[in-house]
This record gives sequence, C-alpha cells and structure tokens, in this order.
Amino acid sequence: MKPLNIAILGCGTVGGGVAQILTKEKELLSARAQREISLKYIAELNPQAAIKRFGLEEKYFLAEGQPVTIDKILQDKDIDVVVETMGGKSDFVHNTCLRVLKNGKHLVTANKALLAERGADIFAQAAQNKLQLGYEAAVCGAIPIIKGIKECFTGDIIESVSGIMNGTSNYILTQMQLQNLDFAQALKLAQENGYAEADPSLDINGGDASHKLILLIKLAYGLKVSMQELSVVGIEDINKNDMDFAKEINASIKLICLAKLKDKKVYATVRPMAVKNDNTLSKVNYAVNAVRLDNKYSDTHFLIGKGAGSTETAMSIVSDIVFIARHGEVETYNEKEQYVLGDAKEISFPYLVSFKTKNLPGTTGLITTCIGKQGINIETVGHNRFSGETADFSIETDTCSLKTIEAAIEDIKKERPELLLEEPKILPILY
Amino acid sequence: MKPLNIAILGCGTVGGGVAQILTKEKELLSARAQREISLKYIAELNPQAAIKRFGLEEKYFLAEGQPVTIDKILQDKDIDVVVETMGGKSDFVHNTCLRVLKNGKHLVTANKALLAERGADIFAQAAQNKLQLGYEAAVCGAIPIIKGIKECFTGDIIESVSGIMNGTSNYILTQMQLQNLDFAQALKLAQENGYAEADPSLDINGGDASHKLILLIKLAYGLKVSMQELSVVGIEDINKNDMDFAKEINASIKLICLAKLKDKKVYATVRPMAVKNDNTLSKVNYAVNAVRLDNKYSDTHFLIGKGAGSTETAMSIVSDIVFIARHGEVETYNEKEQYVLGDAKEISFPYLVSFKTKNLPGTTGLITTCIGKQGINIETVGHNRFSGETADFSIETDTCSLKTIEAAIEDIKKERPELLLEEPKILPILY
Repeated sequence: MKPLNIAILGCGTVGGGVAQILTKEKELLSARAQREISLKYIAELNPQAAIKRFGLEEKYFLAEGQPVTIDKILQDKDIDVVVETMGGKSDFVHNTCLRVLKNGKHLVTANKALLAERGADIFAQAAQNKLQLGYEAAVCGAIPIIKGIKECFTGDIIESVSGIMNGTSNYILTQMQLQNLDFAQALKLAQENGYAEADPSLDINGGDASHKLILLIKLAYGLKVSMQELSVVGIEDINKNDMDFAKEINASIKLICLAKLKDKKVYATVRPMAVKNDNTLSKVNYAVNAVRLDNKYSDTHFLIGKGAGSTETAMSIVSDIVFIARHGEVETYNEKEQYVLGDAKEISFPYLVSFKTKNLPGTTGLITTCIGKQGINIETVGHNRFSGETADFSIETDTCSLKTIEAAIEDIKKERPELLLEEPKILPILY
Repeated sequence: MKPLNIAILGCGTVGGGVAQILTKEKELLSARAQREISLKYIAELNPQAAIKRFGLEEKYFLAEGQPVTIDKILQDKDIDVVVETMGGKSDFVHNTCLRVLKNGKHLVTANKALLAERGADIFAQAAQNKLQLGYEAAVCGAIPIIKGIKECFTGDIIESVSGIMNGTSNYILTQMQLQNLDFAQALKLAQENGYAEADPSLDINGGDASHKLILLIKLAYGLKVSMQELSVVGIEDINKNDMDFAKEINASIKLICLAKLKDKKVYATVRPMAVKNDNTLSKVNYAVNAVRLDNKYSDTHFLIGKGAGSTETAMSIVSDIVFIARHGEVETYNEKEQYVLGDAKEISFPYLVSFKTKNLPGTTGLITTCIGKQGINIETVGHNRFSGETADFSIETDTCSLKTIEAAIEDIKKERPELLLEEPKILPILY
C-alpha cells in the first residue's frame, strides 16, 4: 500500500508537536497502521524558528528547494492528510479547511473555535466527499472523547455529558481553593506559570469551554447549537466567599460544561457549579480536564487527562492520522437530528445561592419566605460572615429550576429594594 | 448495503443484555452505523427462561420452527457477526470460536479467561481471515480500554498501564476500609449483595484481574504472557491491621494490576498495593473499575466506569458490533513484538511492610538494621499496636526492589529465627 502522506499547516506549539511525534515514532506508527505514515511537508511562515524550536529537518519545509506553500500542498496529489494547526476562525483558515476537503484530502485539526462557530460547511464537505475530519485534539486535548463517543460508546445512549473542559479556569479555581487566593491573584499566578494567556478572556468567560461543549452536543445529540444560544457564565465573579460557602457544603467550585437529554430536549449550560466532593469531578485539579458521561446502559464514566500542551494535543492529532491510515474512508457518524435545544433555565439542580445584604433584622426571614413562595425547599442556611454593616450568607436549596430561583430573587428586590448589595451568586450544585 | 446480521451464542446475563440493546435500539444503532444492524438468531439451551428473563421475542431462538443450533448459525451464510457469551475456556467454547472465524464471521466476545489463556490461535485466525475480533467487553466491562489502546492512543507510547480491574475484590476492600470489616465479613457482604459468586476464588486470588492484565499487555506491548509467568498476589490475606497501617500513610489498599515498560522490558504484577490518596485510583470504590495510562506524549489518563453488569458489559459488545458495521475489514492491530517480560521482583516501589513479632526489646533495631543492610532507606516506622506478647508494626521504605525487601526479611529470619510470628506483609506503595 502506498504511504499515507501528511502535510502540516502551521508549525507552532501543536503543529510542531505533531511533526516531532510523526518523525520520531514513524516506525512504530507505521507498524500500528500496517501502512507507512510519512510526513512530507510543513507550511510555516517562519521555518527557521520552527526548525530550531522543534529540532526538525529543513527538508519538510521545502518543495523543490523553495519554502513549501499551502497552495502547493493542496495541489499535491500525493498528500493524503492535511493537519491544520494554524488556529483562529478567520476567513482564510475557514476557506483553507474547505479547500483541503475539496481537494480530496482528509483533514485533521485542533481548531475548536473554527469548528464550533463556523464548522457546519466543513463537516458537510467532509461527509459529501467521504473524507475523514479528525478533531479529537479540538475537545479536551489528549482525552479521547471524540472517538469515545464516535467509536466506543456507540452501543449506548448518552443521557448526559458533563465535565471540566478548560484547564486555565480550572487551574485558577484550584489555586483559589487550595491556596486561598482571590481571583486576581490566582489569574496572575496562572499567567506567570504559563497556564493563562496575556489576554485570558476566552478561558475565564467560558468561551473556550463553550466551543468544546458545542462540538460534543453536535456529536452526541446531532444538535447544532450556536454560541449565542448557549447559556454561559464565566468564572470572573467567583470570590473567596463563594469558595468558603462551597466548602461548607462539602463542595468545590468548578467551571462545568453540561448537556443533558430529557424528553427529546437537550439542556445545556456552561457555568461555575458547586461540585460535591463525592463527584470525581470535584477532585480534578489544576490544568487537568475531565469528561463525565452518564449513559443509559453503561452508567457513569469518567475520562480524565491533559486538556492542553504541545505533545498532549499533538498526540490526539497523530492518533487521528493513525485512525485514517487504519480505516480510510468511513461513513460519517451521524447522530440522528431528533432533538431540540431546551431552555437552560429549566434544568433542575439543587442550588447554592449566596447573598450580600445590609445587616438588618428580618433579612433571612424575607429571603427564605420569597424562596419558599416559589415552591423551593431550603436545605441549609449558612450566615456566618456578619461584618458590621453587611451580611454574607448562603442558602442551599433542594432541586428546582433556575427560573424559580430568579423569580424568588426578583420578589426579594421588589419587597425591599435596598436590601441586596450585590446581585446574588447562583451556583448549581452537582452531585 | 445489506444488513449486518448478528447471532448470539448463549443468552445469560451478558448475552441477554446484548439482545435487549440490539432489539430496543435497533433504529439508533443502524443510523450510527449507516447500515441496518439486525439480530437474527440466539442459540440458547433454555430459550423459555431467556425469553421470560429478558422480554425477548421467541423468533430469535428459532430457525425454520426449530430451536436454532450453533451449527446452523455457523453454516448460515447470512450471519456476519457471532457474539460468544457462553463463557468458560472449555475445548467446546474454544473450538466454537475458531469455527466462527473459519466460517468467515466476525467474532465478538466477553470471554477474558478464554482469550487470556487460550486465545493465541483465535487472535491468529482472525488476523489470517482479516476478520474483526471484538473483545472490548472482556476487559473492565464498559470501560473502552481496548478501543482506547487500539484506536485512540495510537499516537502515543504507553509507558505504564495500571488499574483496578476486578470489581468484586474492590468492593470487598472498600467495605473493609470504610466499614472497618474484616475480610470474611466483607466477602460475605459482597456475596449477599450479588457482587461475589458463591465460589469467589478467581476474584479474590487475582485470577480474573490477571486475565485482563494479560490481554492489555498483549495489546499495548505485543507481548504474550501466561498465567504462570505473571506475578500475582490475591487479597485473601489483607486484614484490618493492613488497612490501618495503610491509612496511617494516607493510602488505601487496592488490588492493582500494573504493567510498566522500562528498557525494552515489561514488568508486570497483580497484587494489593497501598495507593496514596493523591492517586485517583485510591478514590475508586466499590465495584467500579479504573484504568490508568501513563503515556510518553500525553501524560496520565484515567478511564473510570463499570467493570461488570448485564447491560454495562453488553454495551461494550454492542459497540464492537457497531464498530464492525462502520469499519468492516480492518488490518489487525499489531503492536510490534519488541519487548520481553522483566522480573516483577525488580520493579521499584516504595513499600509498606508490616510485621507481627514477639514483643521483645531490640526488635525494631534488628529489623531496621537488616533493611538498611540491603541499601534500603526507611521513611517511617509505625509501631502503635503493642498487645502484650506480640507487636504489630509497619515500616514505610523508600523506593527499592521487591528482591531487596525479601532479602532483608531472610536476614531477619536468620538472625533471630523465633522473632517473626507471621510472614511479613509486603505492599508496594503507589503514588
């Protein structure tokens, strides 16, 4: 069989890692695939820097003595698989991915933003041309959750997929919890240690996690959800008090992605939750990612591993390449489009609601009464943080919907408009 | 495309679960595979009991009005996949599996004993005929570790595979730890709650876990290991003292399967270990299974899920069937046969060694001196359980080999033959 020839577009952190594994482990990978897997080209604007950084031979960057271009690669009939590791969701990258497929080449990419926000025609093009679109690396780095759903749990119905899918925010929350730091201190530490970018917005506002959840919802439920449709809350507003209140109910705060199937509707949200310590997700700390599946037939599964990193992410790309070598043309995996998106405010959780109020008599009575009026049972009230003029306290509710919690808060505001000094913090509790 | 026709041999706990999922979810499974997946026959000695137990239609048990036989199934050109869920490693079952493949049908089985002890010619026959041999269900039930290694982590080198692979023994150890039961009480509880068979030997002596480790070593390292070659210790001798000593060093005792690659050798063992509480495996309780992979490029992964159960195990079989429907003929996955089995006594661990001795002055001095003579550093000595004539105490060592620990114990016996009242318990400590 002719070798499977690979070209890489963009030799940064991930692309360089792919080139390293493909060259160092060529013999092993080829034996596994029972077909030679051969890196042919790397298109990169700054080849000399990449050669130095990743210890690669110059030959990969050249075609007939000239720096190899994307156009040259797309026109090369010998190239079977193109690895897109340029990143970003620009028209250029979007268009390049489409051209890869239109030129009859399999596409492998780690580009979650592109696939989640502008991926529809890329997926469609791959299906139409019966080409593989490998994107294992786009969701939780090294964790094989894409093949997990597409090839492993195919005998089951995923009733819920949840998890910790952004390492930066998990690193920050872990530092806040274990080192008693406030948000700004923990973010600074994450930046100093290379776990957060100079501009960390996409990590801390839930955007990056949303991209991953959107891709998982598409795969597991055949449902296309846009960024605008998804209910997302970031971790920017989590403070030390929230950490303490969570600790008091034996929980840790985590940024949780969750999609849940109920009555033909998919309910989905990305937001900080108070995860009870019996849930394995509560113990997933620092930059580690974890995905939890709750399945109809096989119950609960956890897949835990590195969600980012050069060789970690690159490994997933290389495993996609080996998969293509082993299975070549394969029918698109189409989860039937039988579900619609539900209203995230209707998902039932117990909630941890924390209030900062004026320190006035009758406050607890008023607040708990308003909550009770919505038919919500209260589990515990913790108000151990009086400090002169203000009171911080938290209420743990029984299972109810976000809608009813929000209605109760509206009632409180109406009854005594001056009482609440801040918008209450609402954390679903995850058991 | 013609339907993928399935026959099941043996309609017990697992086979019945497979029949249930294949019939109830036929539409969904067929959509995923983009090919109709159709259960045609079930061969079962007692069809009426199976029909009642699993709510199945009688038609699956009949061919031309007669109970369908294995011979009839093997001769039926329309059958594409045979699911073997009879169990056991008898000549009959072994021969039936070979005949399935010789008749050009894919084979799917949960039969770990057969594949681990007598599987060589079955694997070879599948490879020769370019047929798939699905055995996801044979290793840790619902956890997709077979496809994990074969299809997902193919871009990596597995430096170590370890885990909790027997639910019964883990249930017993968990009860001992959390309820402070002794071994006999915990075993009885496991039997009463359906987690242990009337004859639990294969679960508690490490035999069942060994079958799974042997299959994983074959898959991950291309190395064939026999039951005789594998270093195995069961959990029968674990007592309350051991539990307490482990607790004192922040560890939990788990029956650990471990295979480790070092210098072209695979070191493998199945034995109780004191797993430090920072290791996720220490938190895997009751009948849950977990596999840990330590990979060269993608670092540490955990896959946690149900290791047994009717629909749990059946789900893995059904996922193998969907895989066959999606990928049909596929080149055998052959990890290069480049490794040999190392001496398990040379694996380096820190150890927790517990002694029951006569309560005599100088005992600690003698024992620690003998350990020191072997070049082993001591981390802590805990001797808090004097009770008149005897002393129970434990020593936590730095990293060393089992060989040197055993040599130290021999020295102690030589120096004061009357001192040790029991053979010391040696538990590797897993971080």
